Amino acid sequence: MEQGNFFKNRCTVRNYSGQKIPEELLRSMLDGAAHAPTTGNMQLYSVVVTRDEAGKKKLAPAHFNQPSVMGCDVVLTFCADFNRFVHWCDVSDACHGYENFQSFITAMLDVTIFAQQFCTIAEMQGLGCCYLGTTTYNAPQIAEVLSLPKRVIPIVTLTVGYPATESVASDRLPIDSIVHYEEYQDYNDEKIKEIYKEKEARDDSRKYIMENNKKTLAQVFTDVRYTKENNVRFSEIFLDFIERNGFPFK
Amino acid sequence: MEQGNFFKNRCTVRNYSGQKIPEELLRSMLDGAAHAPTTGNMQLYSVVVTRDEAGKKKLAPAHFNQPSVMGCDVVLTFCADFNRFVHWCDVSDACHGYENFQSFITAMLDVTIFAQQFCTIAEMQGLGCCYLGTTTYNAPQIAEVLSLPKRVIPIVTLTVGYPATESVASDRLPIDSIVHYEEYQDYNDEKIKEIYKEKEARDDSRKYIMENNKKTLAQVFTDVRYTKENNVRFSEIFLDFIERNGFPFK
Repeated sequence: MEQGNFFKNRCTVRNYSGQKIPEELLRSMLDGAAHAPTTGNMQLYSVVVTRDEAGKKKLAPAHFNQPSVMGCDVVLTFCADFNRFVHWCDVSDACHGYENFQSFITAMLDVTIFAQQFCTIAEMQGLGCCYLGTTTYNAPQIAEVLSLPKRVIPIVTLTVGYPATESVASDRLPIDSIVHYEEYQDYNDEKIKEIYKEKEARDDSRKYIMENNKKTLAQVFTDVRYTKENNVRFSEIFLDFIERNGFPFK
Repeated sequence: MEQGNFFKNRCTVRNYSGQKIPEELLRSMLDGAAHAPTTGNMQLYSVVVTRDEAGKKKLAPAHFNQPSVMGCDVVLTFCADFNRFVHWCDVSDACHGYENFQSFITAMLDVTIFAQQFCTIAEMQGLGCCYLGTTTYNAPQIAEVLSLPKRVIPIVTLTVGYPATESVASDRLPIDSIVHYEEYQDYNDEKIKEIYKEKEARDDSRKYIMENNKKTLAQVFTDVRYTKENNVRFSEIFLDFIERNGFPFK
């Protein structure tokens, strides 16, 4: 199958038409995604489907009221899930050892792979998706809204729907700056400047710097979008949540 | 595009034919994968390509000498990478705040999505892939072999090549046991037994229990494949590695 252009032209979709995704199509896409690779075939994940307006309204604040939550057809909250597997061990006379960091990492890998496979399948069906990075920031609120039990940690949220308008694929760094052969070739200052030159010169980047009253594009990331203050605060909240919910790290 | 059957019939490939993947195809597939979603378009990942026999030989012990490392055409080590981004901040007069748990999580999501998109693209090209779960167990050795600098954490390894033989798709749990509507519906003992009944009844599962001299399938997981002893040991090693390499958690 030649799908090269499809993958290079895909894009995030934040605006949706309002057309409904048939229930059977949604289920079939999730079923397809569940055939993605999973550690030892353990399938350490669950997904919660939110379609009701009331449910979306309850979720929205946990995602800082990003408009795609209310505007999409379906919100999917993908969770790392050891609850089902441990329960199976409990009824099978098997003594589990999954209350630790590696087990969290394993389940996080499983659920992320599952979510991304769903995203690809949905995009191939003409649907559009948007990842909400707020999921690991506000995991405690999300867990409460969705009644997540112990050992179930929300990791990825996708808003899904039929696109309202054509979207444009995002720029990416030159692929050769991402790929290393045989050993990691570390970058010197000149190489770094070269890698980011094209991104910095884009009209949207320059607009972004102006709007945020910054001197460089990197400052928009460090001072506005992904600040130390937020990272530190949400690190504490998420760590505490994970450790209290079945995965003490130390 | 109707790809439903493709996704439901895909499978892990551990045995490879020896046919070489053209360099340009590999690069193009990685380029396609780099258009997968990434947090704030930061692309917090790198991939190290190992094709040389000598390189594979050095990597093999870190993967407990799983035969697919030496048997495949290409080993890809996908790494969470804040090194490039932080270096860009440094040359851009931007003061970063990425030495924390959330930043690690963000980069881990980015790289896992990238790796899975590559896996899908490769499978659509007729290639076969195998995830090696040993990557987060033996991250320190892998980092040494690949000369990974600080802020670069190996997360996922894929062995890739043309399949030697037809593989069979793995079984999966019933999709309705994975999907929850509006709220998480926790399982009672009967429901858990029902969910795993089909898996337990499979010939390969019964063989597995016999070979390992266990009473239940779950015991094969807890006592043989994913033991508490290993999980605890490799949790300590990986946590220590991440914290020493740019992401102190607390």
